[in-house]
Amino acid sequence: MKISQIGGEFALIDRLMSKEVNDPAIVKGVGDDCAVLEYTADKYLVVTTDMMVENSHFTSGWFSPFQVGRKLMEVNVSDVVAMGGVPRFAFISVALTRETEVEYMDELYRGIFASGRKHGVHLVGGDTTHGREIVLNLTVTGEVEKELLRLRSGAKEGDLICVTGTLGGNQAGLELLLAGKAGHTAEFLEPECRSASEGIVIARHANAMIDVSDGLASEVGHICKASGVGARIDCEKIPLSPDVIKAASELGKDPYNYALYGGEDFELVFTIGPDMLSGLREKFDDFSVVGEILPKGAGIFLARDNTRIDMGKGYDHFAE
Amino acid sequence: MKISQIGGEFALIDRLMSKEVNDPAIVKGVGDDCAVLEYTADKYLVVTTDMMVENSHFTSGWFSPFQVGRKLMEVNVSDVVAMGGVPRFAFISVALTRETEVEYMDELYRGIFASGRKHGVHLVGGDTTHGREIVLNLTVTGEVEKELLRLRSGAKEGDLICVTGTLGGNQAGLELLLAGKAGHTAEFLEPECRSASEGIVIARHANAMIDVSDGLASEVGHICKASGVGARIDCEKIPLSPDVIKAASELGKDPYNYALYGGEDFELVFTIGPDMLSGLREKFDDFSVVGEILPKGAGIFLARDNTRIDMGKGYDHFAE
Repeated sequence: MKISQIGGEFALIDRLMSKEVNDPAIVKGVGDDCAVLEYTADKYLVVTTDMMVENSHFTSGWFSPFQVGRKLMEVNVSDVVAMGGVPRFAFISVALTRETEVEYMDELYRGIFASGRKHGVHLVGGDTTHGREIVLNLTVTGEVEKELLRLRSGAKEGDLICVTGTLGGNQAGLELLLAGKAGHTAEFLEPECRSASEGIVIARHANAMIDVSDGLASEVGHICKASGVGARIDCEKIPLSPDVIKAASELGKDPYNYALYGGEDFELVFTIGPDMLSGLREKFDDFSVVGEILPKGAGIFLARDNTRIDMGKGYDHFAE
Repeated sequence: MKISQIGGEFALIDRLMSKEVNDPAIVKGVGDDCAVLEYTADKYLVVTTDMMVENSHFTSGWFSPFQVGRKLMEVNVSDVVAMGGVPRFAFISVALTRETEVEYMDELYRGIFASGRKHGVHLVGGDTTHGREIVLNLTVTGEVEKELLRLRSGAKEGDLICVTGTLGGNQAGLELLLAGKAGHTAEFLEPECRSASEGIVIARHANAMIDVSDGLASEVGHICKASGVGARIDCEKIPLSPDVIKAASELGKDPYNYALYGGEDFELVFTIGPDMLSGLREKFDDFSVVGEILPKGAGIFLARDNTRIDMGKGYDHFAE
């Protein structure tokens, strides 16, 4: 049976991981940005792992090995930050091909160390092996103050849905490259995740948090599913950079679709009680309110031009 | 520059990881079976990660997906056990191909869970993606009592070198399969690592410990390098199973070479003061004394038929 026949990747994970695990040390297993484990009296240990495959996640003709290394670290750090955590240590596995040169590895690791230094993450272990294409896996551990842990499941009716920075840059950059256009948005080749200190400030005010791996629509969907709520996203409020608007215009595409369905922007999506908003704004202001958490019965939908667009299963992600 | 030109995998890791890391939370970074990190007052956190690539580490025609999943867990648990630790949690990354079937994944995870259950390890996180061949990565965390932590660097002159169980089964099994022989040793398709309770009993008596990933010669070499000592391995004392002896005889090979250079047996190699030997034997007896730790100046060598065979760089691993 093909994986698509059971509903794709998320359905596969649900199927495989459905085994009941009963261990008091597990605060949160599969189903959030990180696993959360008991650690010290005040802190949880959070752990995330991400795999990047050549030709699937990065094309060596586009990405320099330095950029690949950076992205590998940013992807993982983003998951820790989205829990309200501080990343600490990283463990890498690399499958090289017979043709991989030492210089490629030097640059790859330079990128990993550059991003790691920025985020205070030390690379302390790993495994090196061979394959037909380059495959990289990074596991990052972090710590989170127990009271700051923010899960996908914390959203409450009436919360405002917010997103940091701007969205869509990653997908717009990819499409420019695919179309052979000279320009590209830096977000595609050099995505940068939010810092732990930003994540912590948000966590002090927010109820739920997730990073943008698969696009705003998917992330809001995850929050709603985990929290048992509905949501409205106000399309015109989604923050787009001038680069994304320009790219969409050049390519004849809708820029909001990049933000909603593009993914890998590594910004943070969070939900926050309206009374907490001004307190957050005083300390951190680089975010936009893009919608509202509704009762479950309201469903999950996009409000655009006074039209309700359901974001259920049947929605075609790249329909214009 | 080719990786072989700088001296292969270990030289590459030395080169890439040479950056000085100065963080008091790192007890031991790269260079042992696990990274060792500060954790609680009495315990360290240990973390290991291992990648398995289709066609490189397992051939789908030989291994069932259940066996692949089991091996993935055993490989990692073995590293934790070799530190004197107790494995706790696992994090998986899987690159599937477009052709991978749901049934394959079901069996793979059944193998992972079967081995995990045996060792008390819970799978609590992961990542699923796509590639041209199946690539699996598992990261396993564990805990070790501070006083039981055993590193490669703890060997002392006069220590006896010991190894659990029997060696060579993995390599003998592989060669039988490569030769198209009907029989095979189970150690190749279904390697089993030692349990945490066995590792802990050994740790209470031993000074240094490592698991057999790359063959006895390589592991003793790692211990000597990390401990700044020399060693003599008494070839005829290396424990071989009847299956390995039979396989070598069928294939016209030297069974000791399987043990010395074959690898992936997942037994434990440890060094122990002669005065501690009988105390260990009372609690755990499935091991053999195969040599002695010598002063550094004595070098690292194999004693066989009253001949000294240097195990330096120039030794041809599979010369008969």
